[in-house]
Amino acid sequence: MKRFTDLAEVGREQVLELLALARRLEAQPEPRALAGKVLGLLFMNPSLRTLASFQAGMARLGGASFVITPGQGTWQLETREGVVMNGAAAEHIREGLPTLASYCDVMGIRAFAEGKDLATDLAETRFNAMAALVQKPLINLESAMNHPCQALADWKSIDELALPQRARLVLSWVPHPRALPLAVPAATVHMAAMRGMDVVVLRPEGFALPAPVMDAARSAAAASGGSVQETADRAAALAGAHIVYAKEWGSTTHYGDKAADQRLRGAHQDWCLRNVSFARSAADCHLMHCLPVRRNCAIADEVLDGPRSIVLRQAYNRMPAQMAVLHRLLS
Amino acid sequence: MKRFTDLAEVGREQVLELLALARRLEAQPEPRALAGKVLGLLFMNPSLRTLASFQAGMARLGGASFVITPGQGTWQLETREGVVMNGAAAEHIREGLPTLASYCDVMGIRAFAEGKDLATDLAETRFNAMAALVQKPLINLESAMNHPCQALADWKSIDELALPQRARLVLSWVPHPRALPLAVPAATVHMAAMRGMDVVVLRPEGFALPAPVMDAARSAAAASGGSVQETADRAAALAGAHIVYAKEWGSTTHYGDKAADQRLRGAHQDWCLRNVSFARSAADCHLMHCLPVRRNCAIADEVLDGPRSIVLRQAYNRMPAQMAVLHRLLS
Amino acid sequence: MKRFTDLAEVGREQVLELLALARRLEAQPEPRALAGKVLGLLFMNPSLRTLASFQAGMARLGGASFVITPGQGTWQLETREGVVMNGAAAEHIREGLPTLASYCDVMGIRAFAEGKDLATDLAETRFNAMAALVQKPLINLESAMNHPCQALADWKSIDELALPQRARLVLSWVPHPRALPLAVPAATVHMAAMRGMDVVVLRPEGFALPAPVMDAARSAAAASGGSVQETADRAAALAGAHIVYAKEWGSTTHYGDKAADQRLRGAHQDWCLRNVSFARSAADCHLMHCLPVRRNCAIADEVLDGPRSIVLRQAYNRMPAQMAVLHRLLS
Repeated sequence: MKRFTDLAEVGREQVLELLALARRLEAQPEPRALAGKVLGLLFMNPSLRTLASFQAGMARLGGASFVITPGQGTWQLETREGVVMNGAAAEHIREGLPTLASYCDVMGIRAFAEGKDLATDLAETRFNAMAALVQKPLINLESAMNHPCQALADWKSIDELALPQRARLVLSWVPHPRALPLAVPAATVHMAAMRGMDVVVLRPEGFALPAPVMDAARSAAAASGGSVQETADRAAALAGAHIVYAKEWGSTTHYGDKAADQRLRGAHQDWCLRNVSFARSAADCHLMHCLPVRRNCAIADEVLDGPRSIVLRQAYNRMPAQMAVLHRLLS
Repeated sequence: MKRFTDLAEVGREQVLELLALARRLEAQPEPRALAGKVLGLLFMNPSLRTLASFQAGMARLGGASFVITPGQGTWQLETREGVVMNGAAAEHIREGLPTLASYCDVMGIRAFAEGKDLATDLAETRFNAMAALVQKPLINLESAMNHPCQALADWKSIDELALPQRARLVLSWVPHPRALPLAVPAATVHMAAMRGMDVVVLRPEGFALPAPVMDAARSAAAASGGSVQETADRAAALAGAHIVYAKEWGSTTHYGDKAADQRLRGAHQDWCLRNVSFARSAADCHLMHCLPVRRNCAIADEVLDGPRSIVLRQAYNRMPAQMAVLHRLLS
Repeated sequence: MKRFTDLAEVGREQVLELLALARRLEAQPEPRALAGKVLGLLFMNPSLRTLASFQAGMARLGGASFVITPGQGTWQLETREGVVMNGAAAEHIREGLPTLASYCDVMGIRAFAEGKDLATDLAETRFNAMAALVQKPLINLESAMNHPCQALADWKSIDELALPQRARLVLSWVPHPRALPLAVPAATVHMAAMRGMDVVVLRPEGFALPAPVMDAARSAAAASGGSVQETADRAAALAGAHIVYAKEWGSTTHYGDKAADQRLRGAHQDWCLRNVSFARSAADCHLMHCLPVRRNCAIADEVLDGPRSIVLRQAYNRMPAQMAVLHRLLS
C-alpha cells in the first residue's frame, strides 16, 4: 500500500487487514515501530480530530509530526495552474508540496471541496492536483468527495457493535446553517456498501447524492452482498434501522448556489434528529456522526447525550485506525 | 494524584513531594520516563510559557504533545449547555473535549475567567464544565481563579531563595491597561499562605480580593503557621517585605463593568513598581511576577533589569515543576 | 560552534565540515543523536520550509521542537527598549526570549528586516537585540540581512552539480509585487564568493546591493579566489552563466519608501525569467531560487517546470544542512 486516499482503491481485503492491525496495535502497543519517521500534515481547511489524532497516533508509534496550516504562520498556497501570482498567495503548491514531502516519510493532505462546480469536485480536481505532486506515501485527510480515515474508523466502530449479518444503516441528512461538502456522506455510503450492509440514503428532495457516488456505492454493494437505496421518506427509511448515521450536506440540485441552497435547507429544519425520530427504528438503534456536530440544529441534545450515541467512540477510533494506516505505509 | 487542578486539593504533603521530584528530575534527567505517552494541550486563551514549557518538559521525559487552539486551525468550541448551535462555534465541548481526551494520556486545559459575573467565575463554572468531560489525568493550565502550575513553580522559586523562616510576601497590585483575571493573585496568596509565609495583599480600594479567596488563604495559613492580611497602605505593606509579588488584576467592586474599572484603575497608575518602592523593604527584597509583564506600566525597567528580579527564574521553574506533575500523573 | 547566525562568522573550514556532516547524516542516519534535546523555534515572520524542515530534521535526530508564533496562540512581543507598554504587545522580548531559551537546548529565531531604515537593518539591530537575550546555542532562521541556513543548503546544492572549478553564478533580481528584504541576496552573494565562485549581481538601477554587503562579499572572494561584480546589463551578465540564482528584493535607493519602490519596480516587470533569458548562458545552466516564488511574476512556469530548475533540491537540502548544524551545536 503506497497511498491511503480512497477505501475503494485500498480494497476490501486490505481494509480488513488494516482493521485487524488497528485492533492489534490497541492490544499490543508498538511505541518504537516508527522511530525516526516523520509525518507531514498539510491542512488547507480546519480540523480538530484529524489534527490531534494523527499527531497522537504517530507519537504512540514512536514517530513525529509537523503541521502546516496556510494562513497560520505560513502564507497562503496557490493551487491554480498557469496564473500570474501577483495576489495574496505567496507560494504555489507546485513548489510547496514537493518541498514538504521531501522532509517527511508520509504526508497527509486535507483539501475540502471548492463547492462551486459539482463536476469539478466529483473529479477530485483539487486533491488530485495536490496528490500528483507528492512522491511519498500519502494519506487523504478529507478531500472534496472522500474521507477514508473517517470511513475506516467508522467501519471499526460498526464492527464493535453487536449487529445482525445484514444490518440496516440509514445515512440521514440533517440540518446545518450552511451547505457542507459531500465528502463524508459519499465516503459513508461507500464504506457501508463495501461492508455489505443494507444502506438507505435518506434526504430531502434537492439533496440527492450525485449519481457517480450512488453508482460506486451500488457496485460496492453488489460485490459485498449489500444493497443501496435512496429516499426522501423519513418514516419508511428509519423503520427497522440498526444505525442512523446523521450528516449535513449541501443541496446537489443547487450546488454552488448559496441562496437557493439556503431556501431549500430552510424548509427542512425539522429533520433535526430527536428521540422521536427513532420511534420505528430497531430498539437498540445506534446514532453515528463524524463530528463536529451542531447540537440542537442537526441532532438534539437528548439523542447525543442518550444511550444510542456512539459518536465519541467513532472519534476515538480515528486514532487506532490511522495508526494502522501509518504502520502499513511506513513499516 | 489523578488531577492537578488546584494546589489546595493536591495538599501540602504532595506539593512537597512534587517539589522534591522536580529537583530530582533537574539533577537526574529521565529522558525515557514517559516514552509513548501523549499530552494533549487545549488553549481557549493565548499562552507563551505554558505552551512552550509543557511541550519542552514532556519531550524531556520522552513523551510527546499535541496542541489545540480553537480559532487557530481549529474552529471555535461552544461551551454553553442546551443552545441551538447555529452561530460561529462549529463544535460543542461535550464532543470536542472527550474526543481530545481519548487521544491522550494526560490533558491540560486553559480556560480564563469570563470576567462578567464574579460568582460565576469564583465557582469555576467554565473550567469545571470542561474538566467534568475529561476522564483522563487533567492539568489546570489556568482557570478563572487558579493557576496551580504557576503556584507550584513559584513555590520552588521561593524555596531557592535564602529567606528567614517566617518570610513576608507582599502581593502588590500593579497597573495594566485592562482588567486582568484573578487567577494568579488568588493562586499566589493561597500558595504563600499554604507555604507558611506572612502574606500581605496590597491593593487600592476597589481591588480587594473576593472573600472566598481570602477565606481559603486564611484557612491555609492557619494550618501552616502563616498569616494573611489585606491593605491599601503601600508604605506599611512594603515595610520589611522579603518578596514583592507584583500582579495586575481587575476591580472586584466593579467586576465585569469595564468603564467603571477603567476609571478606578486610571487613578492608580502610580502603583507601577519602581526602585523607590522598595525603600522600606528588606535590603535584598526580591521581585516576583508570573509574566507576561507590561514594562513601565506595571513594573519599571529599573526593577525588572535590576538584581531584585527573579521573574526569569520563576518562568524557568515552570518546566521542572510541570515535569514533576506529568511524571507523577503518568508513571 | 556556539551560534549559527552568519556563514562569515562560522568560517569556510567549519562550513566544509558542516557540509561533510550533512552528507554523512544523509548516508548514515543517527535517530538517537539528540534524544531528550529540545529545539525552540520563534517565528516573528511567516515560514514554510524553515518551519517544516527544522521540526523534521530535529525529529530525525531523535530530538523534539516547540514553535512559538506571536499572534498565533501567543500574544505580540515588544522589541523596543524603554517604552511604556500600554499598546498591543503584552510581553517584551527581554522576558519572552530568555524564558523560551530556558526551556530549550538550542533556539532558532526568525526576525525579518523592518524595512524602514537601511542602516538599522544593515546593523541587524532587531535580530542582534534578540540574539543578545539568548544564552543558549542560537540559529538565525533569517534576519534582516542574513539567511545562513539557506546559504548552507545552497552551498550543498551547488556542490551536487557538476560545475567547472571557477563557475559563474549570476544573482539576478526578479520582479515581485512588493519590496522584499535583502537577506537572501546578501547571504547568497556572500556564500558564492566564500565558495570561490565568479559572482555577478545583476539588478536594475536603483536595486544595487548596499556597499557593506558588496564589500563583505569581495573580501570573501579575495580569500577564496573568487570574484564579485555588479551590473545592470542583463545580456552581458547572463552570458556564460552556470547558475542563475533568481531573487526578489526592494529598491535600495528608495529603501523604506513604498511608493517610490513601486514606481521603480513597475518599470522592470520584464525581468521575469523565461527560457529565452538563458539564451546566452551555459548550455546546462541551472536555475536556483530560495522559495517561495511567485510563478509568472518572478520566474515563468516554463523555467520552473523545466530541466534547469534545482529549486526543489535546494528546498530539500535545508533539512540535511540544518541537521548538521543542530548536531554540531548540541552533540
